[in-house]
Amino acid sequence: MTPKVARYLADMQPVTPCLVLDVDRVEDNFRRLQAALPLARIYYAVKANPAAPILERLVGLGSFFDAASFQEVSMCLDAGSAPGAISYGNTIKKERDIAAAYAAGVRMFAFDSEAELEKLARAAPGASVYCRILVGNDGAEWPLSRKFGCEVEMARALMIRAGELGLDAFGLSFHVGSQQTQTAAYEAAIAKVAMLFTDLEEAGVKVRMVNLGGGYPVRYKAEVPEIDDFGAAIMGAMVKHFGNSLPEIVIEPGRFLVADAGVVQAEVVLVSRKGAEDPVRWVYLDIGRFGGLAETEGEAIKYAFRTPHDGASEGPVTIAGPTCDSTDTLYEKSNYRLPMALRDGDKVEMLATGAYVTTYASQKFNGFTPLAEHYI
Amino acid sequence: MTPKVARYLADMQPVTPCLVLDVDRVEDNFRRLQAALPLARIYYAVKANPAAPILERLVGLGSFFDAASFQEVSMCLDAGSAPGAISYGNTIKKERDIAAAYAAGVRMFAFDSEAELEKLARAAPGASVYCRILVGNDGAEWPLSRKFGCEVEMARALMIRAGELGLDAFGLSFHVGSQQTQTAAYEAAIAKVAMLFTDLEEAGVKVRMVNLGGGYPVRYKAEVPEIDDFGAAIMGAMVKHFGNSLPEIVIEPGRFLVADAGVVQAEVVLVSRKGAEDPVRWVYLDIGRFGGLAETEGEAIKYAFRTPHDGASEGPVTIAGPTCDSTDTLYEKSNYRLPMALRDGDKVEMLATGAYVTTYASQKFNGFTPLAEHYI
Repeated sequence: MTPKVARYLADMQPVTPCLVLDVDRVEDNFRRLQAALPLARIYYAVKANPAAPILERLVGLGSFFDAASFQEVSMCLDAGSAPGAISYGNTIKKERDIAAAYAAGVRMFAFDSEAELEKLARAAPGASVYCRILVGNDGAEWPLSRKFGCEVEMARALMIRAGELGLDAFGLSFHVGSQQTQTAAYEAAIAKVAMLFTDLEEAGVKVRMVNLGGGYPVRYKAEVPEIDDFGAAIMGAMVKHFGNSLPEIVIEPGRFLVADAGVVQAEVVLVSRKGAEDPVRWVYLDIGRFGGLAETEGEAIKYAFRTPHDGASEGPVTIAGPTCDSTDTLYEKSNYRLPMALRDGDKVEMLATGAYVTTYASQKFNGFTPLAEHYI
Repeated sequence: MTPKVARYLADMQPVTPCLVLDVDRVEDNFRRLQAALPLARIYYAVKANPAAPILERLVGLGSFFDAASFQEVSMCLDAGSAPGAISYGNTIKKERDIAAAYAAGVRMFAFDSEAELEKLARAAPGASVYCRILVGNDGAEWPLSRKFGCEVEMARALMIRAGELGLDAFGLSFHVGSQQTQTAAYEAAIAKVAMLFTDLEEAGVKVRMVNLGGGYPVRYKAEVPEIDDFGAAIMGAMVKHFGNSLPEIVIEPGRFLVADAGVVQAEVVLVSRKGAEDPVRWVYLDIGRFGGLAETEGEAIKYAFRTPHDGASEGPVTIAGPTCDSTDTLYEKSNYRLPMALRDGDKVEMLATGAYVTTYASQKFNGFTPLAEHYI
């Protein structure tokens, strides 16, 4: 928690649940990432947190943007971004949304299928397109399965087809999974993309860009490698496989830029036991999986907690949200421990919650309104 | 899909994704349930769908209401419900929300812990309270784990304690899990609650109400038993265990009243394959798990689909939502098949989606606005 966030919580006593996010920390993270990967162009993954104060700060820093929808394209434009700085990075787009983005000046689009390529040829003629390939997601705490990307052989055929359709087949992309804690995942993916690069060159398609996606991890409950380790591993792999004719490098960080800038403050609604002798207490908060903490599904992302009783004696807990849905349980198997003195009415903070929280919140499940947001 | 919904979709061509819900069908379902369980008092579980047209129709039918939050209490009052017809059924409540409901005239509250009982004694003095006990959820497609309820021994102690605190310890409740397809689950739970009933009577606490919760199933992709089967099993078990001094019976249906009244219409955004030889197509819709279809988590609730090509040749599909999140995949392991002719731009309908859809929708994940709602 940054000192500015701590001060804000103490001085303003905002209504819970809420997110308080220090935009200066976003700037620090942007600069740290630039220093770790100086040759990469940063496209902020807007979906991580599309709040205007974040987008505006990043526009001022010269950031590019990765938009998941036409609505996100609009948010970037509203924040002052040039349309040429926006990539429409979702491989699943309605044709009329492609047309709307193209009309707004966007010229960079992702795809991973023939049907999408045909939509792009019709609705974004001549645009620069890049194909997403499937790579391994081992080591990611929020892996991405096979939903996005295609097999290398198909990518090869589609990149050739893109040129035939009058598009600029300028790049290849992959994603190693979000909150990726293994630098080796990037190295393996770069090796895979480099082979396809060479193969396409021999087929007459001069690829000029590699998009490494996002996934750079953030410290939650457990330590993760430093961003400099990822920078070194990525550049080592790029040089190893591309020599000194490096393509343009694009990265799409979301979590890394905003997560540790934000803190969710919640109120303890109830502390109870299921039986008198039950060693585990249930701690119910006024925010849960449907209030924004969607990434706790399967206990994938393990947030760290602060309480007013930290340092006092602790015991095992199950942590759950406030709704009448038992899937709205945050942590039951991850061995969380919280102070024995914790009780209803206490405020607790969940650290590094600036990413993938606000927009996930259900609009009104069980009648609860989404968390308040404070950008400072 | 009711004829009225089909006609509305054909005539109005609403923007997708949307829910169209036939409020007359809600009334039909209410009457069917009344006929199946004539001795039970129906408390509609507002969380299933809190839309004003539904609440208003149910008020007109003499329904009672089960509210999960003070906001839901307010919605019922706004719809014309008497405060005495509202149960605040969430066992996890902020003390100030209990006080607000009490001030509004609500006098019926659930609890399952000592801390909650103490809040009730302070904020709702003299109110009628009922204790939720833990029972088995086998047979439920959306089971409820241990989040709500307490062990029988604790319930016994808490019911005695409630009287000492000046509360009216008038009932016991349980929940066999949502979309419960086994009538035996109710029979086993009734046996368990009846033993506690007797036990409490011997301890001097005269319990007068049994709340059987909800869970009554709806036909999705697979057949389920008729509501009359549940009615017969439940009344058989009640008579077997309580003889002819039956307590007041409360039921809390949500899904059963509204699910099959509604249809979600979506647009196919993309149909693709991951490799040229891949037998499985990916079908991406403009609604997914974060657009409201949260109950497809773990492929628990299996919705039935209608497409413009029904009857033509089919093949295996994975069905996913439109967001850049691969957990936004609806069905990958449930052997869904859809017509080979399906393509982007087609409209598809997901049947019996009137429950647990609208309020679950994320407020703006990936920039997508929540589904539109049409009550007809």
